[in-house]
Order: sequence, then structure tokens, then C-alpha cells
Amino acid sequence: MFLSIAEVENYLHQHIPLSKYMEVKVKQIDENGITLQAPLIPNINHRSTVFGGSICALAILSGWTLVHTNLQTLSLSSRIVIQRNSIEYLQPIDGDFLAFCPFPSTQVWQKFINILLQKSKSRIELNVDVLKDRVKAASFTGVYVAIN
Amino acid sequence: MFLSIAEVENYLHQHIPLSKYMEVKVKQIDENGITLQAPLIPNINHRSTVFGGSICALAILSGWTLVHTNLQTLSLSSRIVIQRNSIEYLQPIDGDFLAFCPFPSTQVWQKFINILLQKSKSRIELNVDVLKDRVKAASFTGVYVAIN
Repeated sequence: MFLSIAEVENYLHQHIPLSKYMEVKVKQIDENGITLQAPLIPNINHRSTVFGGSICALAILSGWTLVHTNLQTLSLSSRIVIQRNSIEYLQPIDGDFLAFCPFPSTQVWQKFINILLQKSKSRIELNVDVLKDRVKAASFTGVYVAIN
Repeated sequence: MFLSIAEVENYLHQHIPLSKYMEVKVKQIDENGITLQAPLIPNINHRSTVFGGSICALAILSGWTLVHTNLQTLSLSSRIVIQRNSIEYLQPIDGDFLAFCPFPSTQVWQKFINILLQKSKSRIELNVDVLKDRVKAASFTGVYVAIN
């Protein structure tokens, strides 16, 4: 059973106050993945578009949230940290933006879980698309480590 | 002549409000490079260490500020945007943290400027070290594009 949208949003706002300042909202949590959203104004830059740091932060959060919520459904309360990430900014964003982290392939997820259960530490690479009006505005890859 | 620390800090806080929320301070601007600083509390995560998104944002800002201030000294008011970046998180940060972007080699900088003057568009790759108590906590590389 997935955590509710409100539970995850409250968790992020309480524990990562930058997400509250950024006005991050959880739009979707289900078997397909996670979608987070943020508006332009608190994330604006000197060009009146979204600051790259905010784009990167939303993408990092979406990957983290995917691992967190899916481990919760397995009753695993692992520590999850980001190890590295890379991002390419494809076009400026001048409004609300979304970060969509699709659930990885069953094979990738099952390998991640098996190693976590066997070795108490496992890593997973996740891809995130940052979208503005359904157009891809940034492409992100992050490697997350879970530790039991 | 470099912009003053106060001028740059005010610019960042006014134009990129996330930097004000993060309590970003400019510690150093000179021929050696740029150092920005931020405290733990507004940048804290669920583990009581600095959120990866804040680490990445401070590094992005330090590279941007290096290009911005050095183009200003040449009376070039180019538009500067980040094209891509990658970061590796080496250890958790549990206090104030710094992002140091050293001035690149003269050869790299001069090539960047020459192409900018000839073609009105040029890109430069910059490395940033994120430090806690003089220990490297993250290693960042960003590619910035200047457009006249």
C-alpha cells in the first residue's frame, strides 16, 4: 500500500524545509512512479525562468521519494542517500514544472531489493524527466544508496 | 575590478530568491575564484545533514557567479545559463558548507572569451569543490554557456 500524497508531501515539507520553500507538491504516487511539481515564483532566477538549482533539487527529491515510498510498502525503513547525479538542462522553464521518476524495470528493482536484503546496502540508478507543459526541459540521472 | 562581496550577495538574493532562503553568503571573490557559503538549518534534510539539492544548488551558483563576475570585469553583460552538471556526494555535511569554484586556467578562460567575442556564444566547464571544515564533501562539474 503506497503512502498517501498528503503523507509524502507533509514528510518532505517537515524534514526537508527547502522543499516547502520551493512549494513542492506531490502529484502522483503509484506503481508507475512519482511525480512532483513546483511553481515558478519561489524558484525563479535572474532570467525570470526556473533556477537550475531548483530543477536539480526537484529531480533529486523525486528519485528519493520513489525509493522511500516503495521501500515503505515493503516495510523496509532503510536510510536512503544520493550518491551522485547528473543533469542536462534542455530548455528554460517559465512556469510550473514537474519531475517524473518512472518506476524502474522489475529486473532493476528486484536486484536492488535482493542486494539490500542480502548485504544491507544496495544502490539503484534512476532516471527523471523534468517537464514543462509535457515538454521535456531537463534530463536527470541519479544514483541512490539504501542502507539498512 | 571585481564586484564587491555585498554587491554579488545582494544580486543573488534579489534575483534568485532560493539563494536568500538558503542563506547563501559570498565569502571570497578575487582572481583565485569564488567561494560561497551556506548554513545547515535552512538546508537540512531528513537525516539532519545538508540536502543534496542544496549542495548542488550552491555549487551551481558558485560557477555561475564566477562567470558572471569575471565577465563584468570585462564589461561583458552576457546571458549566462547552465547547460549540464554532474556531482558526486562524498560524505554527509552536518554544518556550514562552502562551494569553492577556482578560476580556471588562463588558457581555458581565454579560449572561452575569444569564442564569446567571435561567435557571441561560448561555453566553459568549471569544477567546484564543496567543503565542510576544509574536507571535500562533494565534487561538482558544470558547463555554463554565455550568450551576448
